[in-house]
Amino acid sequence: MAQPLAGKAVAEAVQREIVAELEQCSARAGRPPGLAVIKVGCDPASQTYVASKNKLAAKLGFHSRPVELPEHTSQAELLAAIGALNADPAIDGILLQLPLPKGFDATTVVDHISPDKDADGLHPFNQGLLALGRAVVFPCTPAGVLRIIDHYAIDPTGMDVVVVGRSILVGKPAAMMLSARHATVTLCHSQTRDLAGHVSRADLVVAAAGKPGMITADMVKPGAILIDVGINHVQSEADFLRYCDPRGLESFRQKGYAITGDIHPAACEKASAFTPVPGGVGLMTVTMLMVNTLRLYRKRLGL
Amino acid sequence: MAQPLAGKAVAEAVQREIVAELEQCSARAGRPPGLAVIKVGCDPASQTYVASKNKLAAKLGFHSRPVELPEHTSQAELLAAIGALNADPAIDGILLQLPLPKGFDATTVVDHISPDKDADGLHPFNQGLLALGRAVVFPCTPAGVLRIIDHYAIDPTGMDVVVVGRSILVGKPAAMMLSARHATVTLCHSQTRDLAGHVSRADLVVAAAGKPGMITADMVKPGAILIDVGINHVQSEADFLRYCDPRGLESFRQKGYAITGDIHPAACEKASAFTPVPGGVGLMTVTMLMVNTLRLYRKRLGL
Repeated sequence: MAQPLAGKAVAEAVQREIVAELEQCSARAGRPPGLAVIKVGCDPASQTYVASKNKLAAKLGFHSRPVELPEHTSQAELLAAIGALNADPAIDGILLQLPLPKGFDATTVVDHISPDKDADGLHPFNQGLLALGRAVVFPCTPAGVLRIIDHYAIDPTGMDVVVVGRSILVGKPAAMMLSARHATVTLCHSQTRDLAGHVSRADLVVAAAGKPGMITADMVKPGAILIDVGINHVQSEADFLRYCDPRGLESFRQKGYAITGDIHPAACEKASAFTPVPGGVGLMTVTMLMVNTLRLYRKRLGL
Repeated sequence: MAQPLAGKAVAEAVQREIVAELEQCSARAGRPPGLAVIKVGCDPASQTYVASKNKLAAKLGFHSRPVELPEHTSQAELLAAIGALNADPAIDGILLQLPLPKGFDATTVVDHISPDKDADGLHPFNQGLLALGRAVVFPCTPAGVLRIIDHYAIDPTGMDVVVVGRSILVGKPAAMMLSARHATVTLCHSQTRDLAGHVSRADLVVAAAGKPGMITADMVKPGAILIDVGINHVQSEADFLRYCDPRGLESFRQKGYAITGDIHPAACEKASAFTPVPGGVGLMTVTMLMVNTLRLYRKRLGL
């Protein structure tokens, strides 16, 4: 009965929209949108993320500019590289892959990206526009959550929504965006006294705390909509059996690990709809980065 | 049993703190903090508010700079006046009295105030710092709410808090600030389906919707803390009897009007503590403007 809200179909639909939108406006612009992806050092996970961003940019017809700086780059050198991209007329969006190696002050560096080229929507000016209901760009993960519910014709107006986790990247902006869409939002976190009580009243739950199995079946109202932003690596068989769908045990044993969300699989069975992990919200993030870049490009060029 | 949380004592305590802080740092600075209060046109309510701001600034030893522009000022002239204050080394805080006369684009004008001199905390950059937990200045009314609860030793950590009203000036920043203080905050508004249900579970309610008597006694959990940001003018006797404390009827008949909050007096009787209207949060706002100006002054001068 519970409907899985697959992210792939939504990401593909958004990508088709981007291509169509680009066809309409890139002739007038005389150039495609330009996205610079900055990577400092050689963290292997960052390597993978950066590659997928450059690849999708190229696939959608964007100008993709990988900027790879060595591990021993100084903060002054990184700020100078950002300054050059801020001034570069071919670049509309700048993404700085986080985390930075030790020794950098990430806040100073992120704030140095021009708000007009802030593809991640994390600059204070853009966070403020978001709070004021005037955003041009939206942080990618919560923007992906909103696109998924829109795609599946879920209207949050009037719903009681519980967002679990108050991170800058996900929980806080998700709460703001869902409130702007007229949901009644409760923002829960590590100091919440009665998480189960709040979740049990929710029509829609956004779990973004990074704790496997945090939302259990007994907490969930039957028929609720469950959006799972968690991406947790499970490595022991005991944890697998505690947090994951037992039907995946064979695959777990072969691979030696599994990926699971913050919502227990048994909770998803009580839901009317849920986003799977993997295969749900996680597939949206890179696509929403392209949406932001396109929006910045159109705003800069007045298209 | 219900304790009134009087605003006057808190405002006076904060003003004493400001004077003491100023004594410590103004000698090094060689000049007092400078606050420019801009008024366009001659709305009588604005006149009163502006006068009280200039008066308190002077009382606390600030340099107070009233900037009074005629009704027929153009937007370009107003932007030029703000630009001059942005560049003026004697000015640390700029307050633009709202609402502006018709024909102005308030958003463009407010955004033109340098975030470094934004005494109201309403510039997108400062709203973003607030969302990111890095604020230097806080919107005055919710900052006053937080100072009242701090003064009366009310710790919101872990409390279930309901904020009613999602305005940029009050509800949204109050929700962010209380969440940053580790409350579990639910932000209710006009599209909330079951306001009574949410309020009935709240340990602390912040009512900021501008609707007299909106929070009634039957909604409130016995012993809750009620913070009333509403300032409503009641002009008919029928409304007075519906929304106000009947003990004030004689005074209402003499004056022809009464001021009441969003929380019904009978609800306050069920509370453990409540802010009266008038005499509660409303008395804090101008003082919090001075706190912001002092913070901007210290930040600019590195004191």
